[in-house]
Amino acid sequence: MQKQLIGHLKQKILMGSLPAGSLLPSSRVLAEELGVSRNTVVIAYEHLVAEGYVLADRQGTRVISISNVVGYVQNTILEPISLARRLEPFSRIQSQPVSKTLLLPGTPAIDRFPVSSWRRSLIRAIDSSLPHTLGYGIPTGEPVLRDAIATYLSIVRGVHCDGSQVIITEGTQDALNLCVTLLTNPNDIAWVEDPGYRGAKAAFYAGDLQTIPVRVDQEGLTVPPDMWRTHPPKLIYTSPAHQYPTGAVLSVARRLDLIARAMQAGAWLIEDDYDSEFRHNGESITSMQGLVPDAPVLYIGSFSKTMFPALRIGFLVLPRTIIRQAQGALHELLRGGHRLEQLALAHFIESGEFGRHLGRMRRLYRERQRVLRDALMKHFAETQILGGNAGMHLTLKLPPHINDRKIVEDAHTHGIAARALSTFSIAPTEQECGLVIGYGNTHAEDIPDAVNILAQLIQDALTSQ
Amino acid sequence: MQKQLIGHLKQKILMGSLPAGSLLPSSRVLAEELGVSRNTVVIAYEHLVAEGYVLADRQGTRVISISNVVGYVQNTILEPISLARRLEPFSRIQSQPVSKTLLLPGTPAIDRFPVSSWRRSLIRAIDSSLPHTLGYGIPTGEPVLRDAIATYLSIVRGVHCDGSQVIITEGTQDALNLCVTLLTNPNDIAWVEDPGYRGAKAAFYAGDLQTIPVRVDQEGLTVPPDMWRTHPPKLIYTSPAHQYPTGAVLSVARRLDLIARAMQAGAWLIEDDYDSEFRHNGESITSMQGLVPDAPVLYIGSFSKTMFPALRIGFLVLPRTIIRQAQGALHELLRGGHRLEQLALAHFIESGEFGRHLGRMRRLYRERQRVLRDALMKHFAETQILGGNAGMHLTLKLPPHINDRKIVEDAHTHGIAARALSTFSIAPTEQECGLVIGYGNTHAEDIPDAVNILAQLIQDALTSQ
Repeated sequence: MQKQLIGHLKQKILMGSLPAGSLLPSSRVLAEELGVSRNTVVIAYEHLVAEGYVLADRQGTRVISISNVVGYVQNTILEPISLARRLEPFSRIQSQPVSKTLLLPGTPAIDRFPVSSWRRSLIRAIDSSLPHTLGYGIPTGEPVLRDAIATYLSIVRGVHCDGSQVIITEGTQDALNLCVTLLTNPNDIAWVEDPGYRGAKAAFYAGDLQTIPVRVDQEGLTVPPDMWRTHPPKLIYTSPAHQYPTGAVLSVARRLDLIARAMQAGAWLIEDDYDSEFRHNGESITSMQGLVPDAPVLYIGSFSKTMFPALRIGFLVLPRTIIRQAQGALHELLRGGHRLEQLALAHFIESGEFGRHLGRMRRLYRERQRVLRDALMKHFAETQILGGNAGMHLTLKLPPHINDRKIVEDAHTHGIAARALSTFSIAPTEQECGLVIGYGNTHAEDIPDAVNILAQLIQDALTSQ
Repeated sequence: MQKQLIGHLKQKILMGSLPAGSLLPSSRVLAEELGVSRNTVVIAYEHLVAEGYVLADRQGTRVISISNVVGYVQNTILEPISLARRLEPFSRIQSQPVSKTLLLPGTPAIDRFPVSSWRRSLIRAIDSSLPHTLGYGIPTGEPVLRDAIATYLSIVRGVHCDGSQVIITEGTQDALNLCVTLLTNPNDIAWVEDPGYRGAKAAFYAGDLQTIPVRVDQEGLTVPPDMWRTHPPKLIYTSPAHQYPTGAVLSVARRLDLIARAMQAGAWLIEDDYDSEFRHNGESITSMQGLVPDAPVLYIGSFSKTMFPALRIGFLVLPRTIIRQAQGALHELLRGGHRLEQLALAHFIESGEFGRHLGRMRRLYRERQRVLRDALMKHFAETQILGGNAGMHLTLKLPPHINDRKIVEDAHTHGIAARALSTFSIAPTEQECGLVIGYGNTHAEDIPDAVNILAQLIQDALTSQ
């Protein structure tokens, strides 16, 4: 009742039917008129005073002068909204349709995730740590998880760090954004692999960096020698263990050269180790970060593929020098949180569940890749199939001048979500036509039919050229 | 064994003891020397080829030329690291010590949070939605939560929106960052309340904005008329329902004036409704967003205080025009995730648990404020005590020229974490000395003693002047 009365009076004041400067009826009179208690009116008037609609003066409760402003606001023609300039590149990007899922790259087999084990780890974290872990916690993340990650990275990837250098982030995207925030100024130059990961480009556009494509060949990133002089970088994004999407491994010669020149240039290398846990041929590739002590490498990773995408836990390993210098900034910029999930993950890792899960997934992805490769080789030459040393995708090169975007669009109508290789480059070459085909989320039995459909679409495209 | 052999050979190559251009021993010879199987050596050599340490040629396996680069890298003197210029303001900020908790502002009573109910909501979400909710989900957040928030805001705060306008964020900080990313260019001007919320300043510094302080009086933000001309803003940060930290309510006259002038200037008002659920006097203050249709208001809020800080769920309500124009950008920049927590929260709200919890907390905070106010009035005049219409803190004004930072530092040694009012301003006035005293997280029985200690420290400071 009171709320309605307050709202009613406000409207009359805003609309001007209780004019500016006029006195409201006395509370007794209005209460009688409306058939409510006098107290109801008194409290309503007090509320109007609190919000500034009326003022109490000697004569009573007076309406202040605001209704003309309301009239102005309502009659003002709204200009078109100007969004930030940095969003310009995004206006050209089409959103991925979420309902198409067959052969979608970058997506793990979530139907094979050990839900019961994870549930146990979550409940264990809830029961053992509440209510303490409801609070803010350390901005850089739960120490037990940061330590577990440092240990894991050291053993499996040769990354040299301890838990204090590990920042827990909201997945890879947040780790990239943090690199930009900590180390670049607007208009600094950032190099990205071309073709390469679109999330890196998104982070660099969002950070107002000049984003320059650098070609990738079968040995990985290939930097023209004078580019260090003509486009001196501040950040260089790399996926050296398994280039996304071509699958190239960055040779140790190129790694060392990159490190040396980055040091000369005062640049930082971002090493994105996005799927190295799923190595299919031989031993893991050692990290670039661990290759030379004090190399200017920012190592990032994520549990989106090794655990599940919605977990949203990633990490950034910073050199000690940055941790020291950016201490205050990190505490102001980061907010921590998600402590139960972080504790659950730490337990999941330490209990061995994570390792067992990875083993099962490796075997699964290896098998699915075999099925995909076999299916592709019914229609295409082996030399057209790139990548596959690790991860959950293969890249199929197609003849030059083919419209891979059109093939992908047509494939969507069949529920197939493979991606066009040309869309991975800022500056695609004419030769750069192909499909990036994921197998992480597709059952082996569904792969051959889906490949047949793609092969047919490709054949149609070739004959119509 | 293989891993060790690979590591051993790599080291020798990097150090130059297996010189560039030389041939590795044949696999048979090395296997005999080391007493391992020939297969072990063969696979090790294949790995070295894969990483580019060696090349297989007609004569055997040859070491490539890289060791001179290693020498260079190891002998290069590292320059001091230059961090991003935007971090400069953060170097002056001291981190809050986490162990001091009495009277800490901005922190809810986490020991009173209904852990069992939340546990039930979480488990319900786990059991009813996995494995589907392990996947990426919608970047802007779970629809059921976005709808629940839209409904709640409409009823309780008069915010006009539907679920499609609600973006789920990582708390308030992420919501502020998103406003900056979507709507500003580097060097644009942002106004902040002075004294005001440091998180807003952090977001604006991080976004390369010129951050300009605007004074706050008892009616809220007070903008000098020519400031719209001399410092035309793109963003204006406000906490209009309960200014943080002074507690002022922004009068409706000032709200309408702000809205009208913001429209003229093409500026956006950020309305941070950080603690309005805990209103202690009378009805909720209606939102600025709902005051006038199509007002240029970005409404942000968070569940950090109404639920618990580690939950890290906040929201940003965008006008429809922005949602439409920024569609592509939102899908590229946001990654969604945390779906179980979002579903659990939606259930917690819809089941009525959230409303019941808020009711209990309101009563708790009202009582604690009473105890704090009584304790303060033993030592100070009522006119020195600001705020208290809502929330979990009071602000105690102290005489001019007192060093409130020193008082706060001394209070830390007693485990008291009240904050110095002068630290809330970019440009504090000499009169702006005081303490911001939280009662959300402090038991009523601990409040009087803590206040006595503060009173003593203040008395000491006054007598030593």
